[in-house]
Amino acid sequence: MSVPATTVTPPLVDELDIVIPTIRNLDFLEQWRSFFQPYHLIIVQDGDPTKTIRVPEGFDYELYNRNDINRILGPKASCISFKDSACRCFGFLVSKKKYIFTIDDDCFVAKDPSGQEINALAQHIHNLLTPATPFFFNTLYDPYREGADFVRGYPFSLREGVTTAISHGLWLNIPDYDAPTQLVKPLERNSRYVDAVMTIPKGTLFPMCGMNLGFHRELIGPALYFGLMGDGQPIGRYDDMWAGWCAKVICDHLGLGVKTGLPYIWHSKASNPFVNLKKEYKGIYWQEEIIPFFQSVVLPKDCTTPQKCYVELSKMVKEKLGPIDPYFEKLSVEMVTWIDAWNELNPATDGTTVAPVKTTEAAPKKK
Amino acid sequence: MSVPATTVTPPLVDELDIVIPTIRNLDFLEQWRSFFQPYHLIIVQDGDPTKTIRVPEGFDYELYNRNDINRILGPKASCISFKDSACRCFGFLVSKKKYIFTIDDDCFVAKDPSGQEINALAQHIHNLLTPATPFFFNTLYDPYREGADFVRGYPFSLREGVTTAISHGLWLNIPDYDAPTQLVKPLERNSRYVDAVMTIPKGTLFPMCGMNLGFHRELIGPALYFGLMGDGQPIGRYDDMWAGWCAKVICDHLGLGVKTGLPYIWHSKASNPFVNLKKEYKGIYWQEEIIPFFQSVVLPKDCTTPQKCYVELSKMVKEKLGPIDPYFEKLSVEMVTWIDAWNELNPATDGTTVAPVKTTEAAPKKK
Repeated sequence: MSVPATTVTPPLVDELDIVIPTIRNLDFLEQWRSFFQPYHLIIVQDGDPTKTIRVPEGFDYELYNRNDINRILGPKASCISFKDSACRCFGFLVSKKKYIFTIDDDCFVAKDPSGQEINALAQHIHNLLTPATPFFFNTLYDPYREGADFVRGYPFSLREGVTTAISHGLWLNIPDYDAPTQLVKPLERNSRYVDAVMTIPKGTLFPMCGMNLGFHRELIGPALYFGLMGDGQPIGRYDDMWAGWCAKVICDHLGLGVKTGLPYIWHSKASNPFVNLKKEYKGIYWQEEIIPFFQSVVLPKDCTTPQKCYVELSKMVKEKLGPIDPYFEKLSVEMVTWIDAWNELNPATDGTTVAPVKTTEAAPKKK
Repeated sequence: MSVPATTVTPPLVDELDIVIPTIRNLDFLEQWRSFFQPYHLIIVQDGDPTKTIRVPEGFDYELYNRNDINRILGPKASCISFKDSACRCFGFLVSKKKYIFTIDDDCFVAKDPSGQEINALAQHIHNLLTPATPFFFNTLYDPYREGADFVRGYPFSLREGVTTAISHGLWLNIPDYDAPTQLVKPLERNSRYVDAVMTIPKGTLFPMCGMNLGFHRELIGPALYFGLMGDGQPIGRYDDMWAGWCAKVICDHLGLGVKTGLPYIWHSKASNPFVNLKKEYKGIYWQEEIIPFFQSVVLPKDCTTPQKCYVELSKMVKEKLGPIDPYFEKLSVEMVTWIDAWNELNPATDGTTVAPVKTTEAAPKKK
């Protein structure tokens, strides 16, 4: 364990893991050192497992490559994507913490309009530890923020809010556009800092990006499966979208909140739009049927845990999306595999109690 | 007609009226001169009709006091509130324009973070003339804004959006709090400029404030009845809330969009929280039943105009809210009176066609 860079104990330092999917040396961590170093990192190495990933000195981490994933999950490793950042959800599975923050390795520290470096992790933690308000819209945005409140006409019975399960952060510089928009607007950059956090209302879906994302692992982790993407699959770049659609309908069902807005990170590099177009091609037309499907999902009342919700959702996926393409039948099978793997590695977690720390077969490479 | 302050023709100058309810001299217009002077004003004088309201030189306006309202509407004048800013909706009724911007007389020109004066009206017009996106959330806010777009995962079939019917602006300085919050936080000021406009998703209600509000009169005007408040009524300060709840469920039904966010105005003076508490008292507990009522409203498919929707809603109000208090039975009657008055003064408007300019009994006091 390294010595934290600060003498003040940072929030949730023993209750949060940072999950990073990567195929390269993690030099980007140098910029995040003062913010991340007190926390434990789970690095999910994608692609060639014989390659060595360099992690800067001083970070406390465990690293898993494909061999580790196969060894730990055995046949259930089929649910974890290969050669796609969707593999990040393996990190959610093996974490033993209450909260997760996950970030891409091309995301750097952004600055707010005053020039101050933004501690994205601290903002996510703030978002997660304050309630969300999914049942009624507050026009002055986050009512729990210093200097803000609920406006006139906001029902008092709804002002306690609900527990926040997901905190979705945004990106300055390179916006998270699809390939067609990248091609049409190659030079567009996001320079607008919107100083707001808001709850996405109940019943409303959103495009969840996995680049800069915090969540309450115990309450919603089992719903944050990033699907089947990359090697051997007909689709890519829909891993986080899939997780977002599933997680949102399950949050709505369980009465949990989803926030979006602050914090911003600095997204350094646009991915290749031509490569992206190939990956997204099927997703772009499939989503025209997938979105109405998710908008119509009603989960049974007896689904009281994210696991139960997710298994139920897998049946609906098979029935309603299976006819679109055999891919969705395979996906529905792996959704169940994912939950089996989750329950195996997190035996006491039923979505309502705190998971005890458990020793798995994992032999994390601690620094 | 006065000479516009600028030689560039401002947008919608012949298609938009500015409606101002007031009980005092309109000196606040001096600050707005460069922005408002090209437009036509409809001033609704509340309270003592013998009092003379001074309007600064150079503005083009018509002014109605209670005597005018009674003369023009006859027995139907019962639907227009007295001694409450709810009387503003009389201005919506007598306007012959396509769009309305309404503003309170204690609202001044705000400045953006760069120190630039904000042309609130121009921003409302921009909001109204660009589409809204009520069916799916865009995490980078207004996708039609310069420098922004739809993010990855936003269904392409939804990117055309829908027509915007309402543009709800916000307030710097004095926030629009209810009396209890005013009492608890007497010194709280809103100094946070959130540089965003967003669509309030379909199925989500919001607390609509009438202080700084633009809307498409032809498409949604009949739903913007500000209810029965003030003199002789058991409730006040819920006029705009009532209009917002009704208008939102009708917009959702008709496939119209509602936006909130920019523009900000500078709200100069907090109203007396003790007086407000008395006015709001019943509203604060009634709204606990009113909100679930509106959340459950489903309008019949054959309601294809705001008028039809509103009459249907009046029946539901009588049936579902009537049992709370006889006030709601009276309100449901006046909701129908309002629509009768609307149809009388706007005979050709059926919510789908443009209303022809009609000469009414009104003898507006032109300057």
